[in-house]
Amino acid sequence: MSNQTQLAHAIRFLAMDAVQQANSGHPGAPMGMADIAEVLFNHHLSHNPKNPKWFNRDRFVMSNGHGSMLVYAALHLSGYDLSMEELKNFRQLHSQTPGHPEYGYTPGVETTTGPLGQGLANAVGMALAEKMLAEQFNREGHNIIDHHSYVFLGDGCLMEGISHEVCSLAGTLGLGKLIAIYDDNNISIDGEVDGWFTDNTPQRFQAYGWHVIEAVDGHDPAAVDAAIKKAKNNTEQPTLICCKTTIGAGAPNKAGSHETHGAPLGEDEIAATREALNWSYKPFEIPDEIYQGWNAESKGAALEQSWQDAMDAYQQDYPELAAELSRRINNELPADFDAKMNAYLRQVSEDAPQMATRKASKLALEGVGPMLPELFGGSADLTPSNNTFWSGSKHINGGDFSGNYLSFGVREFGMSAIASGMSLHGGVIPYTGTFLMFSDYAKNALRMAALMKIRNIFVYTHDSIGVGEDGPTHQPVEQLPALRMIPNMHVWRPCDAVESVAAWHAAIKRSDGPTSLLFTRQGVPHQARHEAQLDLIAQGGYILNDCNQDPELIIIATGSEVGIAAEATEELQNKGHLVRLVSMPCVEVFLQQTPDYQNKVLPHHCRRRLAVEAAKSDTWYQFVGLDGAVIGQDTFGESAPGNDLFAYFNITTEAVLHKAKALLA
Amino acid sequence: MSNQTQLAHAIRFLAMDAVQQANSGHPGAPMGMADIAEVLFNHHLSHNPKNPKWFNRDRFVMSNGHGSMLVYAALHLSGYDLSMEELKNFRQLHSQTPGHPEYGYTPGVETTTGPLGQGLANAVGMALAEKMLAEQFNREGHNIIDHHSYVFLGDGCLMEGISHEVCSLAGTLGLGKLIAIYDDNNISIDGEVDGWFTDNTPQRFQAYGWHVIEAVDGHDPAAVDAAIKKAKNNTEQPTLICCKTTIGAGAPNKAGSHETHGAPLGEDEIAATREALNWSYKPFEIPDEIYQGWNAESKGAALEQSWQDAMDAYQQDYPELAAELSRRINNELPADFDAKMNAYLRQVSEDAPQMATRKASKLALEGVGPMLPELFGGSADLTPSNNTFWSGSKHINGGDFSGNYLSFGVREFGMSAIASGMSLHGGVIPYTGTFLMFSDYAKNALRMAALMKIRNIFVYTHDSIGVGEDGPTHQPVEQLPALRMIPNMHVWRPCDAVESVAAWHAAIKRSDGPTSLLFTRQGVPHQARHEAQLDLIAQGGYILNDCNQDPELIIIATGSEVGIAAEATEELQNKGHLVRLVSMPCVEVFLQQTPDYQNKVLPHHCRRRLAVEAAKSDTWYQFVGLDGAVIGQDTFGESAPGNDLFAYFNITTEAVLHKAKALLA
Repeated sequence: MSNQTQLAHAIRFLAMDAVQQANSGHPGAPMGMADIAEVLFNHHLSHNPKNPKWFNRDRFVMSNGHGSMLVYAALHLSGYDLSMEELKNFRQLHSQTPGHPEYGYTPGVETTTGPLGQGLANAVGMALAEKMLAEQFNREGHNIIDHHSYVFLGDGCLMEGISHEVCSLAGTLGLGKLIAIYDDNNISIDGEVDGWFTDNTPQRFQAYGWHVIEAVDGHDPAAVDAAIKKAKNNTEQPTLICCKTTIGAGAPNKAGSHETHGAPLGEDEIAATREALNWSYKPFEIPDEIYQGWNAESKGAALEQSWQDAMDAYQQDYPELAAELSRRINNELPADFDAKMNAYLRQVSEDAPQMATRKASKLALEGVGPMLPELFGGSADLTPSNNTFWSGSKHINGGDFSGNYLSFGVREFGMSAIASGMSLHGGVIPYTGTFLMFSDYAKNALRMAALMKIRNIFVYTHDSIGVGEDGPTHQPVEQLPALRMIPNMHVWRPCDAVESVAAWHAAIKRSDGPTSLLFTRQGVPHQARHEAQLDLIAQGGYILNDCNQDPELIIIATGSEVGIAAEATEELQNKGHLVRLVSMPCVEVFLQQTPDYQNKVLPHHCRRRLAVEAAKSDTWYQFVGLDGAVIGQDTFGESAPGNDLFAYFNITTEAVLHKAKALLA
Repeated sequence: MSNQTQLAHAIRFLAMDAVQQANSGHPGAPMGMADIAEVLFNHHLSHNPKNPKWFNRDRFVMSNGHGSMLVYAALHLSGYDLSMEELKNFRQLHSQTPGHPEYGYTPGVETTTGPLGQGLANAVGMALAEKMLAEQFNREGHNIIDHHSYVFLGDGCLMEGISHEVCSLAGTLGLGKLIAIYDDNNISIDGEVDGWFTDNTPQRFQAYGWHVIEAVDGHDPAAVDAAIKKAKNNTEQPTLICCKTTIGAGAPNKAGSHETHGAPLGEDEIAATREALNWSYKPFEIPDEIYQGWNAESKGAALEQSWQDAMDAYQQDYPELAAELSRRINNELPADFDAKMNAYLRQVSEDAPQMATRKASKLALEGVGPMLPELFGGSADLTPSNNTFWSGSKHINGGDFSGNYLSFGVREFGMSAIASGMSLHGGVIPYTGTFLMFSDYAKNALRMAALMKIRNIFVYTHDSIGVGEDGPTHQPVEQLPALRMIPNMHVWRPCDAVESVAAWHAAIKRSDGPTSLLFTRQGVPHQARHEAQLDLIAQGGYILNDCNQDPELIIIATGSEVGIAAEATEELQNKGHLVRLVSMPCVEVFLQQTPDYQNKVLPHHCRRRLAVEAAKSDTWYQFVGLDGAVIGQDTFGESAPGNDLFAYFNITTEAVLHKAKALLA
């Protein structure tokens, strides 16, 4: 038995024992991929355990995230700040070792994985960010950005549709520093996969333009090492290394069975494994020589130091580029960003353009973009409709990675998860567009961005029945409130160009979570605002038109419905009613304001309240209560011109007046 | 120019003219696929325009649904009940010709398409249903079920991840009567696809085990005809016919450009096309000889009559099978279904089992299943966790299509849309399972089922933070209210085995829309009920424990939280408070009850209301208003044992008591 196999056994036993102790978890994948992980971590991965945020490190993603104990074991053994106590607390509340790897919980975990296929997508995003940053910053003799992105994946990842979207695109883009290692163990939860997964996976990936290394023995360190070397030598294509492995490898009775996938092996089988592998150590006991074989602290420190030296030389030769790169690495916005955006907001307010907010979004980008070379945009094949391509956009699709825009093709889910990978990599602020309806296709990627607390900006145009003729398949109804219900997601639905600029400003500034920006297909009127109101937009909800006395009725509206609510408010005021109009472009941000501010906008005692929004109405009752009313869109739409639909579905100034009068009666 | 090309031009001009008249729509795909459609409809498709519901017809799906005018033109020309007036009203309110093909609006439209890739998935489901029914019903000399499923698709469908999921599975299952025709025109909305879509598609589909016919000239009727013949001759594999076409073919200046994709050609280009194609007819004018070339009425009547004769012979030889098939074709439940389910409900109520509701779901299936041979189940690789495999389940994965269960592999979106295709085909009632979290992956397929008003049962287990150790990536929070917000979706979240049986009963009975059934991972207590209460479960919400006077406080709970709410209610009642407990397993069904019933359960004047549900709380304010409260789960979960999480997140009997006392104070 080679020393390397012994080192790999450390992963096996830590995984077995931690899962047993937690009485919950997945030992099979860590045991099956232990030898591969050993080769990767000890012979290829360029990383520094004492600085997991070193920018030029190789990225490592375990897309089959249920195998989290492989990650925790490898990080612990390599010298990351992840103690044995934490491993013993696997899957316990507030441990650093949650059931699936979670970004922000564990040093060295690059992304949150578990929902299958998405880690692979994140890794594609990381490799793409690396390639773009290398093109933007590297200069002759200065390879400042130069690292690989490695991803482990299983059968489940390959069955998921998102694997198709992102691997197809990675092939087209020729992401040569992406190396995917497939744990081909022929087992998924329902059993041996022959009955439901018979793809010729190498052929499939060749069809995507990948470099495929077939039939590698995943338990032979030399074979795995040779394959990874070969993969690194191919810089023009992403590589898929297909490793034949045995799930639960090492367990004498259960290896190869789906029983090892998602349940503890049991004390007996673990004892038998200790016997079979000649492993005489107690649970959670790792001998020094094993630690020595894994420890990467000095190697990592040297790697980072050598990069730091290169950075110093780069700084000498290219001080401006180096400063810009440092700013991006440190995730800092330009110092004058806020001031310039506030000025731009005022300019747009003065210009008072009447336009569809999807056009206003582009107008906002024209303000934001010149300040932010890190801004990276894209669309899932709706560029002309989403207006995501602004005057400073430049395609990378043709192979020039100095650009800042990608036509992603019709791949909403993949696009969104790739953008998360880019954000996680750092140095890039991604925004990506599609129709609001197709947020459905991407939904879990949005959730994952929110869970990871990362900046990722989702541009969703065509945000209501205003879509018109394309009909109910393309008209969002429940999508808007569904996005709002994702914890830590901010959803902005601006009512005009001014709020659109404010929404973009907020989305860029927000560094602890994703933002969805919702825009209309159809034109909307400009709303006049005082100076103070311009600043209040950032509070998420504010009084747009007040009656200057205690209101009898409060109308709350968002987006395209602010226009009709404003008309109705004026008419009611002209008739002597005390009516207040509240524009609430971002409910989540409004709810983060002080109770005092919230109560100033929506005084608790005023119970005549009417919310107006062309979307499913359910969530508005938290603002209007049992005595108020909502004008919403509670059924699917229809195919017809947009104006006909607003009339047909009774989302009009007249309908607001009618409902308001009923409340006032 | 062949006569066939002339016939195809009728599609081209109807599409051009209708899009121009609507000033909106997609002429490019209908013009590019016109020749293919002509060959398919006039030389292969077995259908009867005067009876679009003839059960043994070939199914035809346009997965690239934006090309709807191709479908409408072909149906109109073939003799379906779709008048020229309707074509002139393309994309207008309540026309039979909505922007995208919608099931139920237009005779001959087999499914609603538009969201790309899903029509392809539906077609896989249709082909699967055909194959299973053929195996179940056909007998030597009696090929009663014997038809093809054809699907047109474009680049967009092939880029979407769902195409991978369903085509991989179709290859594994060997769906030999599925014939997909790929409109390979190299154009998507962002332009020529070379920058974002460079798959070797034939190789990809060969990797799935498909029969691939490459490089067919999509404008050569003879070549298309030969390819379809070849496809029909291969009964062991699904076939992909790759047709090279020109988008907007026929338009002299715009053909081949993405400008033809999603906008009218303009009067000038349409005039130029009339000139170039020597088409002397006015808009919406079709000469008799073209109608004659297309009309399929007599051919269709003969086809159906010949099948009817075969059915008569079958009836002679196999009267019981014929009766069963007729029942299924007519979508009738067994006459004694309700009575037996009601008896089963009472039996389970008497047995009073304490179990996780995911186990109760299997118990329900053991009651339902023996009555319904049309029941078809599956899971996205979570069969042992979802408990979807009951004692009467039999896998089809091994190739024996007389079974009734499919391990779908890790393919949630594909599975859900395939199930819709099976439901649309008829003769089968599908239910499919995964974790509630992964409803996210499938979300748009659920919406499409709701939009189409079809029966499709989604089994979602592991429905809250009760998931425990797997952590926040696997713990649904917003998924439950998000499902409820899909118009026409019914969501049941039963609190014990009794409500689980009632939920399954409701889901099976419902024929005008899909149902999501949500079940716990963890055990829940049994709730005792009177006879009358057993019947009231079907109302969606009912009084489970009353104070027998006007209540001071109403507690509303669902699923696993009914148990803690029931404990709290009893304790409060014991202390002399007038507290009512309402169990609301299905909000949507409750809201369909009479105002009188709703007011009896939730009297308007009682404003002390407390909702308890381990999910995002937003939507409960429609029941509790501004003076009530919600105990919910408004943040992401954590990785820890489930009981620890309920305590940590304060969803406990004590928390209910605490909040109730605050409301009563």
